[in-house]
Amino acid sequence: MIIEGKEYRTIWFENNVVKIIDQTKLPHQFVIKDLKRVKDAINAIKVMEVRGAPLIGATAAYGLVLAVIENNEQSFLKKSAENLIRSRPTAINLKWAVDRMMNKLSGVNSDKILEIALNEAKEICEEDIKFCENIGLNGLKIIEEIYSKTKKTVNILTHCNAGWLATINWGTATSPIYHAHKKGIPVHIWVDETRPRNQGANLTSYEFNEEKIPNTIIADNTGGILMQRGEVDMCIVGTDRTLSTGDVCNKIGTYLKALAAHDNNVPFYVALPSSTIDWDIKDFKDIPIEERSSEELSHIDGLDEKGGLKKVLIYPKKSKSMNLAFDITPAKYVTGLITEKGICEASSDALQKMFK
Amino acid sequence: MIIEGKEYRTIWFENNVVKIIDQTKLPHQFVIKDLKRVKDAINAIKVMEVRGAPLIGATAAYGLVLAVIENNEQSFLKKSAENLIRSRPTAINLKWAVDRMMNKLSGVNSDKILEIALNEAKEICEEDIKFCENIGLNGLKIIEEIYSKTKKTVNILTHCNAGWLATINWGTATSPIYHAHKKGIPVHIWVDETRPRNQGANLTSYEFNEEKIPNTIIADNTGGILMQRGEVDMCIVGTDRTLSTGDVCNKIGTYLKALAAHDNNVPFYVALPSSTIDWDIKDFKDIPIEERSSEELSHIDGLDEKGGLKKVLIYPKKSKSMNLAFDITPAKYVTGLITEKGICEASSDALQKMFK
Repeated sequence: MIIEGKEYRTIWFENNVVKIIDQTKLPHQFVIKDLKRVKDAINAIKVMEVRGAPLIGATAAYGLVLAVIENNEQSFLKKSAENLIRSRPTAINLKWAVDRMMNKLSGVNSDKILEIALNEAKEICEEDIKFCENIGLNGLKIIEEIYSKTKKTVNILTHCNAGWLATINWGTATSPIYHAHKKGIPVHIWVDETRPRNQGANLTSYEFNEEKIPNTIIADNTGGILMQRGEVDMCIVGTDRTLSTGDVCNKIGTYLKALAAHDNNVPFYVALPSSTIDWDIKDFKDIPIEERSSEELSHIDGLDEKGGLKKVLIYPKKSKSMNLAFDITPAKYVTGLITEKGICEASSDALQKMFK
Repeated sequence: MIIEGKEYRTIWFENNVVKIIDQTKLPHQFVIKDLKRVKDAINAIKVMEVRGAPLIGATAAYGLVLAVIENNEQSFLKKSAENLIRSRPTAINLKWAVDRMMNKLSGVNSDKILEIALNEAKEICEEDIKFCENIGLNGLKIIEEIYSKTKKTVNILTHCNAGWLATINWGTATSPIYHAHKKGIPVHIWVDETRPRNQGANLTSYEFNEEKIPNTIIADNTGGILMQRGEVDMCIVGTDRTLSTGDVCNKIGTYLKALAAHDNNVPFYVALPSSTIDWDIKDFKDIPIEERSSEELSHIDGLDEKGGLKKVLIYPKKSKSMNLAFDITPAKYVTGLITEKGICEASSDALQKMFK
């Protein structure tokens, strides 16, 4: 998609180096960063220079490409794979991507190991782009249907960033929106700022601005009253992990919006590539919920009046804080799952039927 | 209550000047400010140097004392009253306090008008303190009951600041907590930071720190998962306006917590003095919802690494934002109203029985 008038992807390989957009610098600075060793990839995932389930998966895949370049002994690759998986515990397709890479690389001792790794990482990216495009085309139908009834701007609420910056291109939750916009359907997006890291404001609104899609940032507290007033036609969010039961683990706060949508008869959709489905865990209580540094809450980056990037403490000095990264939206509050194969009810039966 | 080891109230009158704690400076600076003219009082309400329904009411009352000192002609007092009422449209007991003052002052042309005004303003404050104390004693029973069952630290979630800084002393939502703490019941408070102005972090957590009550600040998005995990025993929030139907208009985001509490069988209480009950409006859709400056969202104050207070822009430069200040929690999600007279079901019948 477009940044400053130019077409980009979020990750690419060039001259034995992996290139990423450093998303911790957005929206104030647009910086392209080089990852040269597997530890750079692990760090990029950990400090969230890359984030979003599909992009984390792709970065881990390219991390193993870098590992191969560094030292193609099996023991090093295995160790690298383990370290990559540990870098973000909640993202299901981090493990999926690493396992897929290791399936290709395990036991390979030939000269072609780099080529094999590179091809697999590229294929993971291409597949993701295709999946996101299909998610967009499937979700587009829902937006078209709303528009055909109201003939008014379709107001869509989204949480966090399940945009193209979270994937390789198109995004998941945003893909239907981009497709609707390209088709000329008037849309306006309510963007939850998504504390504590404000990825809604910093990334989703930034994306839409660059693509010239009307959008308004709101505090995470605001979705409820907007729905009470009938100012939201539908919600679309992404997911970090979808259970086979249809329960959705996504950025903290998603659950609260789903409850409000349910209470106000607003359709609540979750967009996902099927690679983020966890077929093993049956009870959402078994999902590990990542607890991140409390400094992400107590401190915030912004531009001062001179345009310099400043980190400020926004809490009382004596205060403690706690930073849980995800919550669970039970399947009963999800109107439907927008996948690459079609729109699917959030239930075991429907998911089994579509994907197994 | 205590700040830096010393006992304070939030507003007092001294040498023909009204003294307030400038709450926009908290938690980073503790500054006492002089209000000398009625326009200072209007401004203090508008820019939220004072906030919280009871304190807004008291400030408006003292604003009319300042008006009397300035110019005790009836036409000036009437104009001042109108301007005071307009300074925050949603706060019901702003109007209540102004009307009460004007009932005493209308038509009074004697030398005693200042004394009359001052006595009435003081009485509004003393009544509020007594109300808050009684709210505390009534709410204490709920906390005691939970503690008597679990014999464990009682985890209470609160939103925004309905603390003593929002009243004259004790607070509303916090009064039961202060009373429980003074009685030796172990409590721990989950404090919603409460974007956009972060009054939870800046004021509620600050208050609890100064009173040495264990508390943890969380993003507004976090309450849902904590309730899903059984880590919240009860919620207590304040209210800016309670309809006679039991519907509660409070700081934006309250509704989302009430939905989560309902979904997880967590009791959700609203603490209020009966002066915040609106007996006129029957349908919550008729409550004017204040829209505040979008700069409260896009900019934030904090301390930089040198300890200097800095305002930073935290959103993309091109982004728009919208700042609604309140939402509505329908009565069906409210377990009970903790009032100065007792605990009351959130319904027309129960409210009529208790207060009419």
